[in-house]
Amino acid sequence: MTFNYSDRMNGLDGSATREIFKLLSRPEIISFAGGLPANEYLPVKEVNEILDEILSGGFAAKSLQYGSTEGFPALREILTDYVKHVGINDAKVENTLVISGGQQGIDLTLKAFINKGDAVLVENPTYLAFLQIAKTYEAKVYGVKAESYGLNIEDLEAKIKAHKPKVLYCVPTFSNPTGKTYSAENRRKIAEITAKYGVMVLEDDPYGKLRFSGEPVPSLKSFDKAGNVIYITSFSKILSPGMRTGVAVGNKEVIRKLTICKQGTDLHTANLSQLIAQKYLEKGYLFPNIEKSLPLYRTRRDCMLAALDKYMPKEFTHTVPDGGLFIWGEFDADVVTKDILPEAIERDVAYIQGNEFYAVPQEGNRFIRLNFSNESPERIDKGVKALAELYKEKISQAKSKK
Amino acid sequence: MTFNYSDRMNGLDGSATREIFKLLSRPEIISFAGGLPANEYLPVKEVNEILDEILSGGFAAKSLQYGSTEGFPALREILTDYVKHVGINDAKVENTLVISGGQQGIDLTLKAFINKGDAVLVENPTYLAFLQIAKTYEAKVYGVKAESYGLNIEDLEAKIKAHKPKVLYCVPTFSNPTGKTYSAENRRKIAEITAKYGVMVLEDDPYGKLRFSGEPVPSLKSFDKAGNVIYITSFSKILSPGMRTGVAVGNKEVIRKLTICKQGTDLHTANLSQLIAQKYLEKGYLFPNIEKSLPLYRTRRDCMLAALDKYMPKEFTHTVPDGGLFIWGEFDADVVTKDILPEAIERDVAYIQGNEFYAVPQEGNRFIRLNFSNESPERIDKGVKALAELYKEKISQAKSKK
Repeated sequence: MTFNYSDRMNGLDGSATREIFKLLSRPEIISFAGGLPANEYLPVKEVNEILDEILSGGFAAKSLQYGSTEGFPALREILTDYVKHVGINDAKVENTLVISGGQQGIDLTLKAFINKGDAVLVENPTYLAFLQIAKTYEAKVYGVKAESYGLNIEDLEAKIKAHKPKVLYCVPTFSNPTGKTYSAENRRKIAEITAKYGVMVLEDDPYGKLRFSGEPVPSLKSFDKAGNVIYITSFSKILSPGMRTGVAVGNKEVIRKLTICKQGTDLHTANLSQLIAQKYLEKGYLFPNIEKSLPLYRTRRDCMLAALDKYMPKEFTHTVPDGGLFIWGEFDADVVTKDILPEAIERDVAYIQGNEFYAVPQEGNRFIRLNFSNESPERIDKGVKALAELYKEKISQAKSKK
Repeated sequence: MTFNYSDRMNGLDGSATREIFKLLSRPEIISFAGGLPANEYLPVKEVNEILDEILSGGFAAKSLQYGSTEGFPALREILTDYVKHVGINDAKVENTLVISGGQQGIDLTLKAFINKGDAVLVENPTYLAFLQIAKTYEAKVYGVKAESYGLNIEDLEAKIKAHKPKVLYCVPTFSNPTGKTYSAENRRKIAEITAKYGVMVLEDDPYGKLRFSGEPVPSLKSFDKAGNVIYITSFSKILSPGMRTGVAVGNKEVIRKLTICKQGTDLHTANLSQLIAQKYLEKGYLFPNIEKSLPLYRTRRDCMLAALDKYMPKEFTHTVPDGGLFIWGEFDADVVTKDILPEAIERDVAYIQGNEFYAVPQEGNRFIRLNFSNESPERIDKGVKALAELYKEKISQAKSKK
């Protein structure tokens, strides 16, 4: 029989990053494609210790039985403290919802706010999975012009007036894919202008704790006076992505709506994941372990920056992020990174083509996202060199055709 | 500011069962409301042993890093064997998707198939969370008349012709809320007639392994020749609900669509949950532990049946399930179980009102769902007695008003 899928499935392909995961099983592939934290800093020993305690102590039956949709009360309590690190000082337990990773925070927010055809705004370019999730809610997505210091406020206001969006999605700290950070002043203005027009802001902060240089900037949420900002962060990059655990912080009424949506999607986040996060925070393991991991990430970033400058053609420019996992590159030449990717993979290097990050995909033709967190310096150097050779060939071919 | 939620949030309240969970923290409440497996049979020792192995062995980093959306290959491989127990003999790995509990299987199926305004059919009455999830997809839900042996086939065909539904949802084994099981012949006919009209069937089987009496019946999926049946089952009732882990089995193309939907909701199911399920099956713990738990469930069912027959007013009738967790009761009297629930809770007994299980809520006014799995025989007796006294008072008040 032929299957009569919902309209939202039209043109909805698997996400490029998820497909790329299948390549990673070939060990010779040097992958700049994913967004994986370094295997070396996954805290196996600490998690082992915590699980021993959970399952030999009073938590045993509780950890296997059903839990409440909102999350374990003790974890939510700790999370109200945790978000003070990004300047959210007034969160109470009722303002928090434990989520099954940051991805779920996006899904629940769009479920609670978006009807088919509603407009949403994103930074241009933006996180590819957001664009995919927006398709499943049949939203119209418009990109806001970005500057080195954040969103272009004039363009933001113009797009709000033109499209009457319900939601603005952004990654203000170490943006995915650009690695850029919005200034405090830019965040304050975004909070003001969205409040003025009644636009919800979904502030996604998966990378903020991975800062190698520069000064921390308070969250956009910390400038929220109207209650229109939902802040989501996850433990994927700083504890374990396999746990699928994060938190959404927002207005009490909004969090209640997200909770109702979560009831219908997975009832609650896996208990062991929640308890691991809770105890990892309680025991004070998080910040020292992040601190220990930063030199490694910084080294890998620096190694990639050096290799890019050493090998890449002169037509190539790139961002220099203060943290996070990604460098964003642009070719000022007649190349389409998507079309070149299969050949790169043949030469054992993977990246994500720029198209994936744009509401209008062809705007990303000449861009690539490069992840530096999950390969050794030697392999980063080797991979960038191979990539550079390939692109030099392609650029010279493109020129000779003219 | 006022929040401009999506249309799907209109009238979408928290599910009754989830709200009732909050009452369970009062230990004096005797709860017949939830659907929790017995605490006594949560396999704490086995899970502890498995986690020790996972985190001290080669699985350590793998269990904390990102996984693939489809689930761990080794778990999916085992699951193709596991579903042979319900007569699904031809499932390959590509026909399986690891899901974050049965609830997610429902959510993903509706996401992949349902547009706003599309019709879905359910057994009348049906699982309350299905009705809630259907609201989030703005589906029109129609109840199919039920008989003691399953769905009324004439009514099913008439409703298919009248409403052109995309999906039929049912719980053919130990149905929630009635505890009833569809006959093999009824399943065969449902498979045939839905294939004829191109209707997808979502067969939900959370309770099938908890059989205390009678003979097993093959799954509806085992009668599927057209590929239109999606079978979902979870480990919540037979291993641990807190793990949030289950499986969807279906046509390869359909499973691919569900996988794309899952990418956007939680990326993948928590790794530790998946690995616990995998090793619990590999080690052969599942079936012996179920076997050990059955006498306890049977005793509790029998205890509740005896108490209902002993204490309840003559206007009360109920089902006698061969397994699962629920007894479904009906008052042939002028009572509305929803209105009486607050008084029951004042007397320290909780149940779920019938309304929650009907597409047209008022059809359930005189019904109650009683869960027997999670209270001791003494408390079941005490709770039913208190409930019976309350209902006798209410029925006599209703009569005296006439």
